[in-house]
Amino acid sequence: MEIDYSNIKVIGFDADDTLWVNETYFREAEAEFAKLLSKYETPNKIDQELFKMEIDNLGLYGYGVKAFTLSMVESALELSNYQVSANVIESILSIGKDMLNKPVELLDGVEEVLENLSQKYRLILATKGDLLDQERKLEKSGLTKYFHHIEVLSDKKEPNYSKLLNHLDISPSEFLMVGNSLKSDVLPLVNIKANAIHVPFHTTWAHEEVSEEEKNGKSYKTINSLKKLLTILK
Amino acid sequence: MEIDYSNIKVIGFDADDTLWVNETYFREAEAEFAKLLSKYETPNKIDQELFKMEIDNLGLYGYGVKAFTLSMVESALELSNYQVSANVIESILSIGKDMLNKPVELLDGVEEVLENLSQKYRLILATKGDLLDQERKLEKSGLTKYFHHIEVLSDKKEPNYSKLLNHLDISPSEFLMVGNSLKSDVLPLVNIKANAIHVPFHTTWAHEEVSEEEKNGKSYKTINSLKKLLTILK
Repeated sequence: MEIDYSNIKVIGFDADDTLWVNETYFREAEAEFAKLLSKYETPNKIDQELFKMEIDNLGLYGYGVKAFTLSMVESALELSNYQVSANVIESILSIGKDMLNKPVELLDGVEEVLENLSQKYRLILATKGDLLDQERKLEKSGLTKYFHHIEVLSDKKEPNYSKLLNHLDISPSEFLMVGNSLKSDVLPLVNIKANAIHVPFHTTWAHEEVSEEEKNGKSYKTINSLKKLLTILK
Repeated sequence: MEIDYSNIKVIGFDADDTLWVNETYFREAEAEFAKLLSKYETPNKIDQELFKMEIDNLGLYGYGVKAFTLSMVESALELSNYQVSANVIESILSIGKDMLNKPVELLDGVEEVLENLSQKYRLILATKGDLLDQERKLEKSGLTKYFHHIEVLSDKKEPNYSKLLNHLDISPSEFLMVGNSLKSDVLPLVNIKANAIHVPFHTTWAHEEVSEEEKNGKSYKTINSLKKLLTILK
């Protein structure tokens, strides 16, 4: 059955790994972190413990680079059995600062797609990172002019999206979300009867992975490039 | 000259130190931090260096407890000349986590004022902390029902407020901001011809202080309790 997009008024775009590269920088940061702590543990164990720490802290710290940096510091204390030096802690803070200072690398076709769709739809950026960091990335990207505004959500679950639609004063059928995460950008929307299109990125954070069971019977489209939006929404 | 508030449609409330206690917790955290590092420097020097670090990092980290915690860690490295122990770093992370877990202590009259004004105006929470932390505090406060939504601004300067008004689709004369910070909640609004009411809190972060010159000739009202809003906006 073809999905009907003719009601759409507002399109929400996820930012990280949908418009620009992000997860790659986290993978690089994790590799640097593992190197810094290599005298205490194997890379694999370090990866596991850091991921566990991030998940443990998620409720308190939320998403984004600052939360990630704090979790790296805390992991370093535990992995080293409280033997880690001040210099290693400094290097960890630098990893975080470098991530915040990274240039923005746009994914293929992004500008063309936004320029085109912004003429017909109201576009918003809907993300769950740090507000300041996301604003800075949007600024660096040169894409600001295509978006009505940025919505930073503390999480991307059904209630967060319902609140967003309420705030935008539109019905679910008038909203389309586009993003790389099935868990955050697609399934919650389908569950509240809004629309979603999945554009996978080559790297997915373990926390964002979903089971076959969760995907089962859900109605959404998957495209391999953002450019396909122009055909679907023409 | 009496200020005319009859055009007001939306009222923005600052959260920290306007609706609930906040700055007090930062002062307590700074005192604990100084105690942890007391073998390296005097409390006064530690205070100064931490403040300097926060300001240096503001552009990169923004506001909020996570940014503050990262600056405490970085300050501890420098103040100790990279001699600080992993256990002290752990204690610093705990200070930050304790701040995020603090109960919300409402200021005098807050609930009565919001309940009353929400019947006539659209109320929003306009803050510059961490989104997750502010959502959590709003949740704990029991005040959620009075607010249309939360606006977390990366900063509270004129362009941020102009963008907010644009997003709310109202003119400056239809917006009133209420808050404890002259620098963040009052002067930028007056400068863009919107309305502002100042409700001082007993403690002000040094970064939020303004000179007499900046205040000179600006038209805003100062009240000593939020309850006065009910008289002014009746």
